[in-house]
Amino acid sequence: MLIVQKYGGSSVADTEGVYRVARKILNTYKSGNSVVAVVSAQGKTTDYLIKKSAEVAEEINKRELDVLLATGEQQSMSLLSMAIKELGGDAVSLTGNQAGICTDDNYGSARIKHINPERIKREIDDNRIVIVAGFQGINDIGDITTLGRGGSDTTAVALAAALKADRCDIYSDVDGIYTADPRIVKNASKLKEITYDEMLELASLGAKVLHNRSVEMAKRYNVRMMSGSSFTDSIGTYVKEKCEVEDLYVRGVAGDKDVAIVTVTDMEDKSGNIYKIFDILAKEKISVDIIAQSNNKLNKADISFTVKRSELKKSIKLITENLERLEAGGVVFADNCAKVSIVGAGMVNNPGVAATMFEAMYDENIKIHLISTSEIKISLVIDEDELETALNAVHRKFKLHLINEE
Amino acid sequence: MLIVQKYGGSSVADTEGVYRVARKILNTYKSGNSVVAVVSAQGKTTDYLIKKSAEVAEEINKRELDVLLATGEQQSMSLLSMAIKELGGDAVSLTGNQAGICTDDNYGSARIKHINPERIKREIDDNRIVIVAGFQGINDIGDITTLGRGGSDTTAVALAAALKADRCDIYSDVDGIYTADPRIVKNASKLKEITYDEMLELASLGAKVLHNRSVEMAKRYNVRMMSGSSFTDSIGTYVKEKCEVEDLYVRGVAGDKDVAIVTVTDMEDKSGNIYKIFDILAKEKISVDIIAQSNNKLNKADISFTVKRSELKKSIKLITENLERLEAGGVVFADNCAKVSIVGAGMVNNPGVAATMFEAMYDENIKIHLISTSEIKISLVIDEDELETALNAVHRKFKLHLINEE
Repeated sequence: MLIVQKYGGSSVADTEGVYRVARKILNTYKSGNSVVAVVSAQGKTTDYLIKKSAEVAEEINKRELDVLLATGEQQSMSLLSMAIKELGGDAVSLTGNQAGICTDDNYGSARIKHINPERIKREIDDNRIVIVAGFQGINDIGDITTLGRGGSDTTAVALAAALKADRCDIYSDVDGIYTADPRIVKNASKLKEITYDEMLELASLGAKVLHNRSVEMAKRYNVRMMSGSSFTDSIGTYVKEKCEVEDLYVRGVAGDKDVAIVTVTDMEDKSGNIYKIFDILAKEKISVDIIAQSNNKLNKADISFTVKRSELKKSIKLITENLERLEAGGVVFADNCAKVSIVGAGMVNNPGVAATMFEAMYDENIKIHLISTSEIKISLVIDEDELETALNAVHRKFKLHLINEE
Repeated sequence: MLIVQKYGGSSVADTEGVYRVARKILNTYKSGNSVVAVVSAQGKTTDYLIKKSAEVAEEINKRELDVLLATGEQQSMSLLSMAIKELGGDAVSLTGNQAGICTDDNYGSARIKHINPERIKREIDDNRIVIVAGFQGINDIGDITTLGRGGSDTTAVALAAALKADRCDIYSDVDGIYTADPRIVKNASKLKEITYDEMLELASLGAKVLHNRSVEMAKRYNVRMMSGSSFTDSIGTYVKEKCEVEDLYVRGVAGDKDVAIVTVTDMEDKSGNIYKIFDILAKEKISVDIIAQSNNKLNKADISFTVKRSELKKSIKLITENLERLEAGGVVFADNCAKVSIVGAGMVNNPGVAATMFEAMYDENIKIHLISTSEIKISLVIDEDELETALNAVHRKFKLHLINEE
């Protein structure tokens, strides 16, 4: 098998970690596999480099910041390669440039355009373990770019797609995907598998194990992912197109505390006005999550939507300035909200799921402010201080602690 | 004018230093020049990275060490570029690869084979200040190499040659070349100029301002060098083919404490035996500096030579093991020696120079162990504890403190 692995910064934070990862890679190789390992910068290196650049310049040039940040992965890949050689393996480290990772010009958040895997293939053919710097690539004029948040995961999945790898294992300090955040829901259980779509919903809902960009790419190219821990030898969670246990209504529950509600009140009920609200926000690059409309008055509507808390102030200001244009009466907000969501691909064929979720809220006497549903997800906005209770109630109600025992 | 500048690690050790250098570059640029600045890794970065690699591996892979070390210059070049932009200039940083610095495969001490300056020329044409990572290049298969000791100086001179630059300024924490080490000879004076050949002799004699490799390359391509300080605005010392003041007998005096003498005694006086001594040493990569022969006995000769102190033990062992083959009687040594040398291109036409130097030794009652002369240099090996006295005596005797006042 050809296996692409990715090791995050916390996995290679110190010499001990570098060796742990080196051994894991060597074990995979010695089991008869070809291995391409993507590695992030060690521990806090990237933060340290950003701090250094901030000491030098107030307005940091994005091209030069990418040049600086790319050194973090270059350092960890060479150290990892040295460790593998020290353990008797044969490894070669490659920068984004050397690995043929071609991106667009968008310094700081470049997108991979294509991969020229010739060098990697040559090294694999020579029976070498290939260590590739995550998070970085090179644009058309030969400048170094970085891929932004979740960049190393994206590098790994893109390489797995380009190399037609059998698997793409993403290792971090978390040993897989859980039915809920184990810090909040004590008896959360680890999933054996999850679909791309479920993972995408869970990731955007606050489960930070895999980055959405990489899952989207894995889905597009049908790359079989695995999320596991570099600190243990246990098997993690597989992410794939379809799961074997199809009839699971609910795969997991997630919470997000960064939620504020804005409500535009008494707006003339024309679709043109609704368009205007979200056009005004989009022009200022404010992301809106849940949108709900209530029609309780004649020809007047209240439109509610959620934004990140950091964007609440700006949102209020924009709406207030445009009240007349929007033909609206006023604007109110709530800034201490949270979102509880359940995700499951089987939900669509099981109409009782929503009812069960509402029942869980009712049992705990939790007030629901907004409701949003999709084919594989139901989200409720509630008060922040009830999030923990809500997560546990939903987890219990759907018996998610039993999910791995079927 | 097109000026290549090189800034050493101590010049960019901290943010203050980065800004000092940024301003110096901008001033040069604003005076109507095009500037290509080569920069070393900040302060102790290279040492830190070497230490890190030593933590990971006992036998460090040279290819991977180069990958690691190259990040030091990549960091400083991006920070310097950011600082220039912060000051309102337009700069672009380029790695060895991007700057087209092509080397051989000799990881850790690669030699520059040729330079493809297209990218640099394009940036100069676009009126940008170009910052290039010193010390690094790329080999035929696209792997990162480093140039070894004095690498950044070599990068600067090679770029100056390839770009046909008008000048190559090497900035460090020393403001030029002195007639002697100012820490030992209090009234040493700064030279306005020095020839390549004099500089080569002085460098190998222990004056560590410019690296021999870069001076040799400057001589070959007739690159006009300048050695100056990044901490002051004073003009440094120019290094060129011929100096305007041709009749200076002695340009400077240098001392070297890392000297041990080995004497092979009572050897059968055949040239074959002498060959054998130095062949045995060369095969073990021991560098020999001064060689002297005395013929005081019938058909027997004593051969003395100097080596670095760290190689004394090995040298003695090799000679002792081969005494029979060498047809020699024995071997003796002295490990606490030093070398005092005078250098000057005008020396060759002035037979009195050697006599004056011996007189200086005689004045101070300093015993001379070995003598070595070349066209532009006279070296004497003396006892280590007399080096300081000897340097001052020679400096005084040749009135070198007056050298800048003609």
